[in-house]
Amino acid sequence: MPVLGSVRERFSRERPFRDMRIGCCLHVTAETAVLIGALLAGGAEVFLAASNPLSTNDAVARHLSDLGVATYARHGEGPTDLLANVDAVLDSRPALTVDDGCDLLARLHVDRRDRLECVLGGTEDTTTGALRLRGLVAAGALEYPVLAVSNSTVRLLADNRHGAAQSTIAAILRTTNTLVAGSTVVVAGYGNCGKAIADIARGIGATVLVTEVQPLQALAAILDGHRVVSMDEAAPKGDIFITATGNRDVLSERHFKAMRDGAVLANAGQFDLEIDLEGLESAGARPRRVRPMVDEYAIRVPGADKRLLLLAEGRVVNLAAGEGNPPDVMDLAFAVQALSCEWLARQAPELGAGVYDVPGEIDTAVARLKLGALGVSLDRLTAEQSAYLESWGR
Amino acid sequence: MPVLGSVRERFSRERPFRDMRIGCCLHVTAETAVLIGALLAGGAEVFLAASNPLSTNDAVARHLSDLGVATYARHGEGPTDLLANVDAVLDSRPALTVDDGCDLLARLHVDRRDRLECVLGGTEDTTTGALRLRGLVAAGALEYPVLAVSNSTVRLLADNRHGAAQSTIAAILRTTNTLVAGSTVVVAGYGNCGKAIADIARGIGATVLVTEVQPLQALAAILDGHRVVSMDEAAPKGDIFITATGNRDVLSERHFKAMRDGAVLANAGQFDLEIDLEGLESAGARPRRVRPMVDEYAIRVPGADKRLLLLAEGRVVNLAAGEGNPPDVMDLAFAVQALSCEWLARQAPELGAGVYDVPGEIDTAVARLKLGALGVSLDRLTAEQSAYLESWGR
Amino acid sequence: MPVLGSVRERFSRERPFRDMRIGCCLHVTAETAVLIGALLAGGAEVFLAASNPLSTNDAVARHLSDLGVATYARHGEGPTDLLANVDAVLDSRPALTVDDGCDLLARLHVDRRDRLECVLGGTEDTTTGALRLRGLVAAGALEYPVLAVSNSTVRLLADNRHGAAQSTIAAILRTTNTLVAGSTVVVAGYGNCGKAIADIARGIGATVLVTEVQPLQALAAILDGHRVVSMDEAAPKGDIFITATGNRDVLSERHFKAMRDGAVLANAGQFDLEIDLEGLESAGARPRRVRPMVDEYAIRVPGADKRLLLLAEGRVVNLAAGEGNPPDVMDLAFAVQALSCEWLARQAPELGAGVYDVPGEIDTAVARLKLGALGVSLDRLTAEQSAYLESWGR
Amino acid sequence: MPVLGSVRERFSRERPFRDMRIGCCLHVTAETAVLIGALLAGGAEVFLAASNPLSTNDAVARHLSDLGVATYARHGEGPTDLLANVDAVLDSRPALTVDDGCDLLARLHVDRRDRLECVLGGTEDTTTGALRLRGLVAAGALEYPVLAVSNSTVRLLADNRHGAAQSTIAAILRTTNTLVAGSTVVVAGYGNCGKAIADIARGIGATVLVTEVQPLQALAAILDGHRVVSMDEAAPKGDIFITATGNRDVLSERHFKAMRDGAVLANAGQFDLEIDLEGLESAGARPRRVRPMVDEYAIRVPGADKRLLLLAEGRVVNLAAGEGNPPDVMDLAFAVQALSCEWLARQAPELGAGVYDVPGEIDTAVARLKLGALGVSLDRLTAEQSAYLESWGR
Repeated sequence: MPVLGSVRERFSRERPFRDMRIGCCLHVTAETAVLIGALLAGGAEVFLAASNPLSTNDAVARHLSDLGVATYARHGEGPTDLLANVDAVLDSRPALTVDDGCDLLARLHVDRRDRLECVLGGTEDTTTGALRLRGLVAAGALEYPVLAVSNSTVRLLADNRHGAAQSTIAAILRTTNTLVAGSTVVVAGYGNCGKAIADIARGIGATVLVTEVQPLQALAAILDGHRVVSMDEAAPKGDIFITATGNRDVLSERHFKAMRDGAVLANAGQFDLEIDLEGLESAGARPRRVRPMVDEYAIRVPGADKRLLLLAEGRVVNLAAGEGNPPDVMDLAFAVQALSCEWLARQAPELGAGVYDVPGEIDTAVARLKLGALGVSLDRLTAEQSAYLESWGR
Repeated sequence: MPVLGSVRERFSRERPFRDMRIGCCLHVTAETAVLIGALLAGGAEVFLAASNPLSTNDAVARHLSDLGVATYARHGEGPTDLLANVDAVLDSRPALTVDDGCDLLARLHVDRRDRLECVLGGTEDTTTGALRLRGLVAAGALEYPVLAVSNSTVRLLADNRHGAAQSTIAAILRTTNTLVAGSTVVVAGYGNCGKAIADIARGIGATVLVTEVQPLQALAAILDGHRVVSMDEAAPKGDIFITATGNRDVLSERHFKAMRDGAVLANAGQFDLEIDLEGLESAGARPRRVRPMVDEYAIRVPGADKRLLLLAEGRVVNLAAGEGNPPDVMDLAFAVQALSCEWLARQAPELGAGVYDVPGEIDTAVARLKLGALGVSLDRLTAEQSAYLESWGR
Repeated sequence: MPVLGSVRERFSRERPFRDMRIGCCLHVTAETAVLIGALLAGGAEVFLAASNPLSTNDAVARHLSDLGVATYARHGEGPTDLLANVDAVLDSRPALTVDDGCDLLARLHVDRRDRLECVLGGTEDTTTGALRLRGLVAAGALEYPVLAVSNSTVRLLADNRHGAAQSTIAAILRTTNTLVAGSTVVVAGYGNCGKAIADIARGIGATVLVTEVQPLQALAAILDGHRVVSMDEAAPKGDIFITATGNRDVLSERHFKAMRDGAVLANAGQFDLEIDLEGLESAGARPRRVRPMVDEYAIRVPGADKRLLLLAEGRVVNLAAGEGNPPDVMDLAFAVQALSCEWLARQAPELGAGVYDVPGEIDTAVARLKLGALGVSLDRLTAEQSAYLESWGR
Repeated sequence: MPVLGSVRERFSRERPFRDMRIGCCLHVTAETAVLIGALLAGGAEVFLAASNPLSTNDAVARHLSDLGVATYARHGEGPTDLLANVDAVLDSRPALTVDDGCDLLARLHVDRRDRLECVLGGTEDTTTGALRLRGLVAAGALEYPVLAVSNSTVRLLADNRHGAAQSTIAAILRTTNTLVAGSTVVVAGYGNCGKAIADIARGIGATVLVTEVQPLQALAAILDGHRVVSMDEAAPKGDIFITATGNRDVLSERHFKAMRDGAVLANAGQFDLEIDLEGLESAGARPRRVRPMVDEYAIRVPGADKRLLLLAEGRVVNLAAGEGNPPDVMDLAFAVQALSCEWLARQAPELGAGVYDVPGEIDTAVARLKLGALGVSLDRLTAEQSAYLESWGR
C-alpha cells in the first residue's frame, strides 16, 4: 500500500494527531491495520471496535494490541459483545470518530450522548452509512461535522472501475465459468457502476443490452455504443443479467418466465432486493445448489420450462462470491481516510454539524501520491499558462 | 431533425410564445431555419440578425423573410452592416434574446440600454459567450436572466462524442490520409473532450499517450487504460499530437525540436493558442502548404532535421478542416434551445439577473424525445419502486 | 450441450455407427459422457479407458457402465492399471480409436500391433497428441488415418477466445485480486492465444506491451494498437506478465531482477517451461505461498529488493488455477469429435495412413448447429449470387 | 517511404538487376516513381506504360524520363495510345513484367507472343489481376511464373486495416458527416475486410449488426461480440449499411423498402455490384445529388416513404469518395513489389509457369524493415530456445 505508506511517512514527521484520541469502528483486517498504523505514526492514540464480527481477523487484533491500540474485537462474537466494544471505544472520549456503517456515531447520538461534547468530527466510509447520516441531518439530530469519504472523487474512480466492473465480472466468471465472448449481457441501470460493467463486458466480447428508467442515462448508453431496451425486450435475449440500479425488483417474475434456459442472474447493487427472490421462487421450484454460490431455479412455463442460475443468492456478487476490493483500491481508499482525519483534526473546530464532501485538495493529494508511486510525470503550468487560465471569465 | 420537429409540433398546439417577440443573433443556416420555424409555430414574432457574415446562407435568409421573419443578414457583409442588423433586431423590442457569442446581449447592455426594460430573459448558445456573460456577472452588469445552453447535459453528451472526438479524428484522416492503426497518438488534456478523443483513437488502433497537469484527470486516464507522460517524454514518441486543454502553448518550441520527422500537429481546442505558432516558426523555416489545410514546417535540429505537419494553421481542426456538427447533433442542440426559450417565457419573470444552467427537466425532455425518435423503450418505475427510492435518505 | 444434443438426435435416426466398435481413451467426465451418449445413439458399441486417473469421475464411470459402455476407469488408479485399461479397450478390437493424448494409438502401434488390422481410423483431441502423431508419420510408422481435431477451425475459434483469453485473465483475477485497469500487462508471444489475451487485457483497462521474435507477428500487434518492445524493455515496466509463446525461458533471471516489486508472473502456454523457474529460484529466496496458487519470490538486487508473485507454479494458469473449458466450449469441441467419428466411419476405407485436418464441412456443420441453437439467421445465396461467385476465376 | 528507401539503399550496393530489363504497367504516380527508383538503383533498365490514363501524373512521367526510364504515359490519353504504350514496353524485351491489372501480361500472351521467350517472370499487384491469372492457369495458357503480391501477408495486414476499415469509415464520415456514436452499422460480410470495418465501427461507438452466408464467419463474428442477423432483420434497424462481401445484390429492392428514412448505403467491395442499383431505382425516384458523392433516392412505400443516401454511386467508397491508400501502406506494398522482383530475378529460372504466393521470407524481410523504421525491438531466440522449438514434432 504505497500511497498510504507515504502518508504515514509524512505523518510520522509532522505528527498531526499529537495528543489526540481517535475512536474507530472498522473491519479488523490487514488493510485496516495499515490505516491505523498511519494514524499512530501521526501521534494519535487509537481505540478500535470491530464493525463486523465475521470479518475480524484475530491475529490482526492481537498485532494491533501489541502496538498499543486498545482493540475490542473477537472473530464471531455476538451482538452484546459488539455493543460493549463500541461502548468501550466511546468510553475513551475520542476527538475523532472513524466509522464504517455509522454504528459508532449512531450509538453516540442515541445512547451515549454523554460522550458527544469531546468529539470534534468524524468520517464515514460507506455509502450506506452516509445515507444514515443524511437521515440524521434531515431530523436535525447530527451534532458534529462528518466527512463522507465514500463519494470522494478518488474513491469513485477506483471503486467503480474495480468494485463495479472488474470484480463483478470476475465473480461471474469464477462462479459460472461461462463463455462471455459471443454472449448477450443485460445490464440494468447505466449509472457509474452499470456503465463500467457494460464497458468491461463489451471489452471481453459480449453484446450488451442496457435497461434504464432515466432518459439521460439511456441516451448516454446509446452514444457509448450500447443498445437500450426495456427489460421485457431484454428478458428473452440475455444470457447474463446484471442489476446495478439501486432499486428493487428490477428482475421480477414476469421476466424470469420469459428468459432463456440457462440464463445467469447476478446483482451488483448493494442490497439483495434488485432480483425479486420471491418472484423467482413463485415462478419455479425451490432452488438446487449446482456449484458454489450458484443456485438453479427450475421455472415452469407451459411448453418452455427452463432453469435459471442465481448467483450469490442475489446479494452483491463481487463481495459475496468474490474477494472484495483489492489492495490497490484499499490503498487509495484508506489514504483518503487518513488525510480526511488530518483535515478534520485541523478544520473541525471551524465547521458546523453536517455531512461534508471530502475537500478536492485531499483527492488531488491522493492522486498525486498514486502517480508518484507509479512513476508518472505530469506537466506543470508555466507562469504564462497559469495567467492565461486565470484571465478567463474576466 | 426529428427531435426539434416534435418540439415544433407541440409548440403549434400549445403556442407558448403567443404575442411574444424573440430577437435572435445566430448563424443564418438551414438548421437555424428549423429552430426559428419551431419558435414561429409556437406563436412568436421573430427578428433575426446574422452572427457571422461568412456563414450566412442568402437563400435561407430569403426563405425566412418569406415566412414573415424580419431577417437582417447578407452573406459577406461588413462590420457596419452587422451592427446595424443587431440594432434593427433590438429596435423590435424583443422579450427574449437568443444569442450565439453574446453580441446581441452585449450591444444591449452597452449601447442600447434603452431596450433593456422589455427583455425578460435570453439564451446563449456558445461556451465563449457564456464566459463573456460570467464576466458581466462578475462586474455586476448583467441585467436579466440568461440560460447558458452550451453546457446542458444533452449538449455535453452529443458535442463531446461528435465535436470532440469523431469530428476531430475525421478531420485528421481527411487532411492527412495517415494510417492511425499502429500509430502513437498524443492527447494533451484529459477533460471530456480529450477523453473522447483518446477513446476513439484507441478504437481505431492507435496507442495513446495522455499529458495532463491535473492529478485527478491523470489518474482517470490511467484507469481508462491510457499511459500518462509529460509532453517532454511524449514529444519524441508521437506520430499525431492533438491538443485539447483550453490552455496556451501546450506544444512549444522545445517539443517541436524533439519530435519525429513527419509528426502531425492538430488542435481540438477552441482557440488557436494551444500550439505555439511563433515557436514553430522560430524552430523552422516558413511553412510550405503540402495539401489542403496541411502546412509543412522544416525544423532545423543539428543532425536531426525534420518536417512537422500543422493542420488548419492550429485552429480548431474539426471546424476549420471539417464540417462542424452534423444534423443529428444540431437537432439535439436546437431542441434544447427551443425548450429553453419556452421555459424562459414562463419562468423569467420570477428569476433574478444571472447566468443559469439549463434545468434538468429540459435535458430529460430532449433525451426522451430523441429516444422516441430512435424507437427506444425505457422501463417505468412501479409504484413500489418509486416508494423504495423515496424511502432512501430517511 | 445443445450442439452435441442435436448431433445425437440425428445419430439416433441415422445410426451411422451401426455394428461398429469404438475404443476411447478420454477423461472420464460428465462432458465425455455426453459425447459417448451420442456415439451410442448412433449405434456404436463403445469401450472406454481413462486417459488420466486424476480426472476420472467414478460416478460418471458407473453411469456409463450402466448404459452398457465397457468402462475401464477408477479415480486415482496407478500406471499399471491404466495400461491394463488401455489393453482391455484394445482387446475389444475397435474399428475407430478416439484419443486424448495419443496413448491408445501409441500402445496399439508399439505393443499391440496384433489389433491394428481391424482399425479403420481414429481421432486425436489434443495438440500434444497431434505432435506425437506427426512424429510417427515422420518415422513412417503410422498405420491408419487420424483426424487431428484440436486444430479444427471451430476449436481454434472457441478455444482461443476462452481457453487463451477469458480463462487466463479470469484465473489471474481469481488468484491475485489485482486491479487490471491502469496496469501494464506484458504479453509474450502474439500468436492466436497471445493476441486474444492482449485484446481482453486492453478491454478491461490495461495498457499492453507485446514481446515477439517474429517480425510479422510484431507488425500485426502494432497494427492492432499494441506496443511491441523487447522483454528487456518490458521487464521494468510490467505489472502482470503472461507468457504465450510455446517456447522455454521467455522470462529468465535477467528479467526477474529488472522487474518491479509486486509483479505477477503467469504462464498461458501448455508447458511449465516458459517461465524459467530455476532462474527464479537462483535470483531469490525459496518461495513463500501467500495465497492459494500464488508463490512469492523475494528477489535480491542490491538496493532494489523485490517480491515477485508466481501463479500456479508456472503451469498453464487457466487450467491449474481455473476451471478449464466451460461447457459451451466443450459442446463445440465434442460435436467436432462426434462428426469426425461419423466421417471416418464412412471415409476411412478410402484414406491412406496419415494425419488429416478436420474437413471444412464438419466445421461448417458444427457452426451451423451452434447458430441454430443461438437462433441466429444467416442469409442464403440466391441462384444469381451463386452463379456470380462461381464465375470468378474463369 | 522509409521501408522502400532502405530496400533501395541495399539495391544500390548489391545491384540485383544488373543488365536486366524490367517492363512495368503501373499507375504513373509519385509512389510508383519511388518504386522505380529502387529498381533503377538495383541496376535495372526500366520501361513504363501507364495502367490508367486518369491516374497518370504528367510531371512524374517527365521526371522519370529525365532519370532515363522509357516512359509511355500521358494524362487522359485514349485506348489506342494505351495499347501502343504497352506494345512499346514489350518491344523493349523485358526479362521481368510488373503489372497492375494484368494488361501487360495479357497483351503478351495473346497478341505479342513473339516477346514471350525473353521473359523470366513477373509480378501482379492487384487481386483482380490475380483472378485473371488464375483464369489463364485454368486454361493452361500461362507461360511464365508470376508472383501475386496482393495477397502477401504484409499486404493483407496493411490493406485490411487501412483500405478496408479506416479509409472506408473515413470516406463515410467525410461524405455524410453523420454521427456514428449511437448509430447501428450493418456490415454485410465478415471476411478480413468486414471484420476490420466492424471493429472500427464499434471502436467509434456504433452498435454493429453483421450479415453472413457462411456459418464459420458468422460464428467468428458472434465470438468477436457482434450480433449476426439476416439482412431482412437488419434492413429496418440499420443507420449505415456497408457491403464487403465480394458478391452481387447484397442489398436489394426488398431491403431498400424496409429501411429507415435517412439510411446510408456504402460499398466497400471492389465492384459496384454489391448494392443493386437497378433495384434502388425501381424502388424509388431518380436520385438527387444532395452533397458531393451522396445521392438521395426517394423510396415509395405506401405509408412509409423514405429517403436513402447512396454513397459514391455504389462504387468502392474508400477510393471513389476518399483518397485511397496512404503513403505508409504504399511503402509496405511497394517494398514487397521490389523484393519480389529481386527474388524473381534470382529464382525465376528454376520455377515453372504458374501463379505463386510471395515467399514468406519476403514478408518477414519487409516487416523487419518496417519495425526498424519504427525503432521497435524484437527479442532474439537463444540457442537453447531454437533447439527447443526444433525438438517439437520429433
